[in-house]
Amino acid sequence: MIDLFLDGVPIRGRSAALFDQLRAAIVEGRLRPGDQLPPSRDLADELGVARSTIATVYARLVGEGYAEGRVGDGTFVTDYHTGSNKRTQAQAGTHSVRIARHIPPWADTLTTPPGGWRIDLRTGRPDPSLFPVVDWRRCATAALDRPPPGYGEPAGLPELRNAIAAWVSRSRGVQATYDTVLITAGAQGACDLLARALIVPGDTVAVEDPGYAPTRQAFAQHGAKIAAIAVDADGIDVIQIPRSTRAVIVTPSHQSPTGVVMSGARRRQLLALARTRDLMIIEDDYDTEYRYVERPLEPLHRLDTHGRVVYVGSFSKTLSPSLRLGFIVAPADLIAELTRVRHLVDVQPPHMTQATLAAFIASGGFERHLRRTGRIYRSRRDHLIAALDRLRRNGTIESFDQCPAGLHLTVQLLRGDQAARVADRMQAAGIAIMTTAEHHVADRALDLVIGFGLASIQQLDQALDALAKSG
Amino acid sequence: MIDLFLDGVPIRGRSAALFDQLRAAIVEGRLRPGDQLPPSRDLADELGVARSTIATVYARLVGEGYAEGRVGDGTFVTDYHTGSNKRTQAQAGTHSVRIARHIPPWADTLTTPPGGWRIDLRTGRPDPSLFPVVDWRRCATAALDRPPPGYGEPAGLPELRNAIAAWVSRSRGVQATYDTVLITAGAQGACDLLARALIVPGDTVAVEDPGYAPTRQAFAQHGAKIAAIAVDADGIDVIQIPRSTRAVIVTPSHQSPTGVVMSGARRRQLLALARTRDLMIIEDDYDTEYRYVERPLEPLHRLDTHGRVVYVGSFSKTLSPSLRLGFIVAPADLIAELTRVRHLVDVQPPHMTQATLAAFIASGGFERHLRRTGRIYRSRRDHLIAALDRLRRNGTIESFDQCPAGLHLTVQLLRGDQAARVADRMQAAGIAIMTTAEHHVADRALDLVIGFGLASIQQLDQALDALAKSG
Repeated sequence: MIDLFLDGVPIRGRSAALFDQLRAAIVEGRLRPGDQLPPSRDLADELGVARSTIATVYARLVGEGYAEGRVGDGTFVTDYHTGSNKRTQAQAGTHSVRIARHIPPWADTLTTPPGGWRIDLRTGRPDPSLFPVVDWRRCATAALDRPPPGYGEPAGLPELRNAIAAWVSRSRGVQATYDTVLITAGAQGACDLLARALIVPGDTVAVEDPGYAPTRQAFAQHGAKIAAIAVDADGIDVIQIPRSTRAVIVTPSHQSPTGVVMSGARRRQLLALARTRDLMIIEDDYDTEYRYVERPLEPLHRLDTHGRVVYVGSFSKTLSPSLRLGFIVAPADLIAELTRVRHLVDVQPPHMTQATLAAFIASGGFERHLRRTGRIYRSRRDHLIAALDRLRRNGTIESFDQCPAGLHLTVQLLRGDQAARVADRMQAAGIAIMTTAEHHVADRALDLVIGFGLASIQQLDQALDALAKSG
Repeated sequence: MIDLFLDGVPIRGRSAALFDQLRAAIVEGRLRPGDQLPPSRDLADELGVARSTIATVYARLVGEGYAEGRVGDGTFVTDYHTGSNKRTQAQAGTHSVRIARHIPPWADTLTTPPGGWRIDLRTGRPDPSLFPVVDWRRCATAALDRPPPGYGEPAGLPELRNAIAAWVSRSRGVQATYDTVLITAGAQGACDLLARALIVPGDTVAVEDPGYAPTRQAFAQHGAKIAAIAVDADGIDVIQIPRSTRAVIVTPSHQSPTGVVMSGARRRQLLALARTRDLMIIEDDYDTEYRYVERPLEPLHRLDTHGRVVYVGSFSKTLSPSLRLGFIVAPADLIAELTRVRHLVDVQPPHMTQATLAAFIASGGFERHLRRTGRIYRSRRDHLIAALDRLRRNGTIESFDQCPAGLHLTVQLLRGDQAARVADRMQAAGIAIMTTAEHHVADRALDLVIGFGLASIQQLDQALDALAKSG
């Protein structure tokens, strides 16, 4: 086996560094076609990294055609040069395509073990078994009675924009009208459009650290310089935002992933900064729909008197991420520009899911769905908090966040380097669980992240038993 | 009224120039709040431009808040500075948002007259009344029986990728497998992903001239320098493609909008160029599904032995553009990269329409639909060709293309400057018809474009009567 070097590489860069070293070894012929890569557990031990890091790197090597998995046998180097592996056989003589800008794979996708996960504690996934199948199908079949129209409005179906305007006004006090709402492909689609409309390459965009990686990657893809700003108990540390910043992206209702709710003082500080420095605030009102404690704080959009706040919402966490529906509320002139961007990206949102969601909201089905699922998620959350409190008191864990909102919380272990190893052991026991590793820009101690969107109360108990045994 | 200057501005630049001059007049106070803009017909006569040009400019002024339309009364300047117009009232004190890169509006959207169009001859729109409502609803309701899954594959639903791979192999001889197919939001979504993966700002991308404007705009948005290459009777003039070109985008089956089918010799010449210069060919196999004459030529993808061709298909022209479903067939390493790009743009395609389309194709419904609609479109096309031939013989028009494929054809009038005026007059008579103006990069004589996707045989006859009277 060849030598691999990770000394001095920060945790976040390790997967990329390993990938580059293995790929170089294959391309340069130091690893030869048919050579077996070491089992991921062995290599993880040897290099002192999490086993999931190795699995991610191997998956990427397979994905790009440098290696192939043989079932029950391991991972082997392919004959990359002559194209004799399965991936390139389909096109004899294929040259590798020159790629302009390589994008690192998003490592939130754990490799599912054969037979699937026993318990799934991943975040950002509502329970599919709670999906309102009957109500939704009624709204969908009504829409399917007619042929879909030809081209629709790039900003989205007018009925849906009206329904969302009424809904955010009722539920969040966000003042919106038909022409200040744009339908997007979830929050990620919103970020991509906003980056294209607001960012000139070289502009600085401030993000929360830790924070959701695909958001900052979307802005970086359009040439933004990313300024990672630490999050404390009040939310993003506003005074660290660099002077030249063009836009700030925040999740004030439930910071992703720490769970912090941005304090009222911090909100006012951020709005004052936006006013004096002419920067835009992108308020991703993540996880606002499920709230378990205290009266919610007003969204930044509602407090804003200078049109500096763009409000982003999504139906991914309440209905299903596979709907790909979310929205932007912004001043009408920005909405007009985003509409032209949307036309270039993919012309318009798809008609059928828009028509279905519009009818679902207008009929009151969405609010009924939130009440029903909110009760279920609250019982899981309360149970989890009580169980974690026992683990904290008996010294198994250091602390945890109280989950004021949303479908996940973070757990701090007793030793700062413990989370990755605990996650590995729990994964080996069939439990899908992540750490905050993928969220961090700066190198720092990792937390465990426990999502309860997909897990029953019994499964949460089993998972915490496994956690206690994995320390 | 202020002075407006269009002398020496090429046809394509006139709308932008007019917009800039009017906006400047408003911002600088030469046109004041409440001032009425001249009726579009008067201004068109005064400036010697098409009335649709003025309508486009006024629509954009309204869209960006500089003007407002009052029903039955005309277009008036708003109080843009103090935000007293309707658009900005919703957010008191709103500043205008600084936009990074303004995108010109896509002028394919004629302003629909009150009461709607009498006859619609626009292109790129299949007949909604031919949509297979019953078959489609059966496939959709089967998919709706289960809750949608959580996140799916960013490259698209495996069943749909398999169904498309089998379909393009059967119908077009395009060799594809599950891992060389990526689902996109139509052909436009495909172009956006390809631009992001293949283009470094400053790279040259060659496009057909005339050609579909949103395609070249999508590449330009990602920093590509656009080289507009003339189309002759054999297709794109390959020898004009600049040496440094990184990618060429072509519509060989039915050039959009001229209707030319790329000759076999030109296909081989383009492939040889791609091989020697290491450039990528993006083959948008536009309008291949409806063919009326001769045996089709093999797609570039099938002739390619060096993995230089990316094949793009869409269901917009056969089922409905509002589905937003299309696909890319490309070497697996490029598909892997495009998959990562897609994850950043909007995570994945929506589940429900994918599941419905997969079942629709797999059940044979799609091929049945193409046979049924193909017969109907063929009868419209044959009728139109015969009627145009009469107009040509009696000297009303100069010539027209024989429409070997697709849902539109182009008509050359006797005088090179006649098309815009004829289109204006036909529009005034309630007929939605466009010229090739929006497709041209270089300044040149315009053709009329007649789409028959939405028009019955009777409507086509009426439209040609109106054409004969509008010369």
